[in-house]
Amino acid sequence: MTHTASPTDAAYVAVDWGTSSFRLWLVGRDGAALAERRSGEGMTTAARTGFAEVLQSHLAAISAPEGLPVLICGMAGAKQGWVEAGYLDTPAALSAIPAAAVRVPGVEADIRILPGLAQRDATAPDVIRGEETQLLGAAADLGSGNHLVCMPGTHSKWVRLSGGKVEGFSTFMTGELFDAVAKNTILSHAIADAGAIAPDNTAFRAAVTRMVANPALATSQLFSVRAGSLIAGLSPEDAKARLSGTLIGLEIAGALSLAAKDTPVMLVASGSLGTLYGQALAAAGLSPTVIDADTAVRTGLAVGAKALWSL
Amino acid sequence: MTHTASPTDAAYVAVDWGTSSFRLWLVGRDGAALAERRSGEGMTTAARTGFAEVLQSHLAAISAPEGLPVLICGMAGAKQGWVEAGYLDTPAALSAIPAAAVRVPGVEADIRILPGLAQRDATAPDVIRGEETQLLGAAADLGSGNHLVCMPGTHSKWVRLSGGKVEGFSTFMTGELFDAVAKNTILSHAIADAGAIAPDNTAFRAAVTRMVANPALATSQLFSVRAGSLIAGLSPEDAKARLSGTLIGLEIAGALSLAAKDTPVMLVASGSLGTLYGQALAAAGLSPTVIDADTAVRTGLAVGAKALWSL
Repeated sequence: MTHTASPTDAAYVAVDWGTSSFRLWLVGRDGAALAERRSGEGMTTAARTGFAEVLQSHLAAISAPEGLPVLICGMAGAKQGWVEAGYLDTPAALSAIPAAAVRVPGVEADIRILPGLAQRDATAPDVIRGEETQLLGAAADLGSGNHLVCMPGTHSKWVRLSGGKVEGFSTFMTGELFDAVAKNTILSHAIADAGAIAPDNTAFRAAVTRMVANPALATSQLFSVRAGSLIAGLSPEDAKARLSGTLIGLEIAGALSLAAKDTPVMLVASGSLGTLYGQALAAAGLSPTVIDADTAVRTGLAVGAKALWSL
Repeated sequence: MTHTASPTDAAYVAVDWGTSSFRLWLVGRDGAALAERRSGEGMTTAARTGFAEVLQSHLAAISAPEGLPVLICGMAGAKQGWVEAGYLDTPAALSAIPAAAVRVPGVEADIRILPGLAQRDATAPDVIRGEETQLLGAAADLGSGNHLVCMPGTHSKWVRLSGGKVEGFSTFMTGELFDAVAKNTILSHAIADAGAIAPDNTAFRAAVTRMVANPALATSQLFSVRAGSLIAGLSPEDAKARLSGTLIGLEIAGALSLAAKDTPVMLVASGSLGTLYGQALAAAGLSPTVIDADTAVRTGLAVGAKALWSL
């Protein structure tokens, strides 16, 4: 996707560089996106073809002025990425994230990569890379006080914010477990050929509710997907919904177990995953505020760029 | 494995016919095993080569007398098996299991296959096939009153017994989930090349204890295997132990959530899996009585044969 830029107005370049995706925005002095690029050249690809080369090709494609500062978040800062950007340890003030960005050495332009967050806790060690920037963007809309921020995905992140500080966070392997269980266990027969889960699927909501009530039964509820298919005529659609609702409900129960009752919840998500989590949170009795994940990461990069370069 | 039989003393043949394993005993009038056969000709293989042929080849190999009654338990009674043996619905008296055995038609000998158990419950549909016979054997050692019987495996079964009656049961996908997660998720890197879990591994016991205290955090504790490897130097051995302890601890927490406090627990298991579950149950503060799973299935088949044929 390419737009034509008006190079004279450009202030900086923002990049969200994930494991398998690359997104770049040329941002104007007024904060508007003058051009945007999206591609599949994530960390995995760029580690082979060269990070500098990938970035340069996209800058050239939009005729970006030479020498603009570039702010990057995501897996480009991982150990296997371009330049390792390390982690800020929790508790961490969100405002400390931009200053901890690491500069890419050996290039003339000011290219910086934002750090991740690390929770160095013996019983719950955890890491974030990429979502800290969504968080920086989403928090711009939050007041002080305590907040629980849900960022669903392959590895869902739930962050406990107090004022502008990350007190702690938890990663739930929900999306990756869904794939592993759906493809590589006996449940694959029960959900074969099922389509997308309908937003109003009652089997999904019931599974979420059961997990919030008794999360200890999670792996038994998973087997009930198989047994329900064998002896109770559970349809492939409802089987898939039950599997998804069990894993998402377990995640919600876990996240709530670490926060004070009635802590306000914010959902940072996009598309069908956002719809599904909205349904799940409602089934769990929660009324989250919702922020689009794409908007959040762009806002987070803008907050970072302003802090670093007084733009 | 073959022993030489003394055919004149033989009373019946007992068969434990699983998905991937076949075990047969020629049993004497005094209940002793006169001969034993073990092979990999489980349901999957026999469905191709013929159940009658597999059984006949093993009977011939031990020179079993013609026309002995044969009692079979396990997947040979599944829909994809030899003859579908259906399910007894819970609540079900254990004593009702033998009489519900299904006779194999079209053969002269009296060959019967024991039924499974089904829990037709909308929120927790569940099925057992094979373990009902272990249960029949294990229960011979139990008094009346309430008992919780744990039969660990690919699909662990926990049965709630009251007197001689199965009130209900829960299947936990523990073993299958361990394999799927260990092989097909990002955790595979953390546990690469780890050996067997040592019986005294403290990471295993700590993971069990954490799950019993807060099972809702299960999928976050799974991710901590990855994060611990990234930022806390978690060894492959401890990573594997943490993964296993989390899944087994979650299973124990779930099973306990459905039983009255202080219900006596019986563990029916063999070998290293039995040792691991013994450690896990101890970490959860339980002191189970232990019965060998092989003994339990043989005793269960003997109880069934006596009931059916007044042996």
